[in-house]
Amino acid sequence: MPSNDSSATGLSFEQIRQYRPLEARHAIRQGDWPRSTAGLSDGYAQANLAIIPARYADDFLRFCMANRAACPLLDVTQPGDPHPVSLGEDIDLRSDVPRYRIYEHGRLVAEPGEIGEFWQDDLVSFSIGCSFSFEGALMRDGIELRHITHQRVVPMYRTNIALVGAGPFTGTMVVSMRAMPPRDAIRAVQITTDMPSVHGAPVHLAEPGQIGITDLMQPDFGDPAVIEDGDIPVFWACGVTPQVALMNAKLPFAITHAPGHMLITDIPNSRLKYR
Amino acid sequence: MPSNDSSATGLSFEQIRQYRPLEARHAIRQGDWPRSTAGLSDGYAQANLAIIPARYADDFLRFCMANRAACPLLDVTQPGDPHPVSLGEDIDLRSDVPRYRIYEHGRLVAEPGEIGEFWQDDLVSFSIGCSFSFEGALMRDGIELRHITHQRVVPMYRTNIALVGAGPFTGTMVVSMRAMPPRDAIRAVQITTDMPSVHGAPVHLAEPGQIGITDLMQPDFGDPAVIEDGDIPVFWACGVTPQVALMNAKLPFAITHAPGHMLITDIPNSRLKYR
Repeated sequence: MPSNDSSATGLSFEQIRQYRPLEARHAIRQGDWPRSTAGLSDGYAQANLAIIPARYADDFLRFCMANRAACPLLDVTQPGDPHPVSLGEDIDLRSDVPRYRIYEHGRLVAEPGEIGEFWQDDLVSFSIGCSFSFEGALMRDGIELRHITHQRVVPMYRTNIALVGAGPFTGTMVVSMRAMPPRDAIRAVQITTDMPSVHGAPVHLAEPGQIGITDLMQPDFGDPAVIEDGDIPVFWACGVTPQVALMNAKLPFAITHAPGHMLITDIPNSRLKYR
Repeated sequence: MPSNDSSATGLSFEQIRQYRPLEARHAIRQGDWPRSTAGLSDGYAQANLAIIPARYADDFLRFCMANRAACPLLDVTQPGDPHPVSLGEDIDLRSDVPRYRIYEHGRLVAEPGEIGEFWQDDLVSFSIGCSFSFEGALMRDGIELRHITHQRVVPMYRTNIALVGAGPFTGTMVVSMRAMPPRDAIRAVQITTDMPSVHGAPVHLAEPGQIGITDLMQPDFGDPAVIEDGDIPVFWACGVTPQVALMNAKLPFAITHAPGHMLITDIPNSRLKYR
């Protein structure tokens, strides 16, 4: 398959990238977009997904509410309902994400492109805000994001920042790091403060040791940091936090999106301030 | 004179401190409050004063507008009018500040308690927002301000941050510094962003060398910094900036307030967000 063509329609990735959210979801549903959703339907919020049996949903909801910087909820479905109507038109959570991860007792057992065969009538789906939204806002403000310039995955680190536990869900916060000059860091605080449903303001800056990070060049997830002269590190609560909590909880069954393979919503990023 | 009594009325300083702005200005006008206005009429904005001949006023106005982080204007009077009506009831700029400074050709020639004898029909008065307002907001949020805890004057530094010049008014920015843990620094950015008419968000943080500061313990104005373990320095544009520009311009005649001896206005600090 040529790397710039989609598998079924013959459309180029560049053409699909311009799709509005509904079109993009339909392309994904048909298997025409098997890779990361970064940059897809630019300007619209994307969401992390956590899909778990209803009997764990109350605890997970409390966990998200108590740690909302790391787990900002955009939507929670009724048990068994795969349609998060508050997030957009004709969304089917069983097929509209390019790649899923199936966990059994905390162990990854499959990475399918759709989950119809795994669906159960008691599954509750949590859609959680994602840093893609605020990265767009930072770049539009003229702030360079080093990992994007260097085509890397943003570096993420486990920290010593304790989370509020709820039932089986516990742990410490995972943060993402973006290095930038101090003046940009101040702007970044201002911009992301206005976007609380996609992690909001940074939780820390400068001084990585204070939150238990010993080496910025050795992230726990993602690629090594790119740090230029005069940069300070700026840390945001990261959507990997609920995923790690979910794995640690070792639920008999759980589904998430695969990293970078998100749900594209109909919500313009500019509206996240008021959500 | 007992240090806790005012000179004329026999009221204690503690009693006068509780005065509402109009009462406080009247006490000052009568000479009953000969010292710093820090903490006086808590909750109301205080202003820096620059009083200059009308022929320099247009340049100074442009200088303030072009460097508004350092020179946030709260009011500009008509030539010869000592009553800045937008700032409060029955304010007389010739008597309502506890101590003034008279400059001739950039040289300090007098520090009187009122300026009736120096008043001229062409004087234009600029009232400029002051960090006292945002310090109150920071402390109410639970952020400790080290210089206040240690009863010091906030440390201030000349920087290499260039200002936009206008006529005889030029120079580099003077900043004030408050040291605090990174988490408080993030809150401080959020809080002061909402108060643009009292210097607004920090202009810099961490890395003092980047703005030309070589030793935080040797400020150019104020007292040496108090910095605790885990603190980072946070820098705000400072109202000393226009004062230094005024002195550098060596105008034949100019009047300012004496440091710390401000004009108390009727404007609640909480309204500065919308001014």
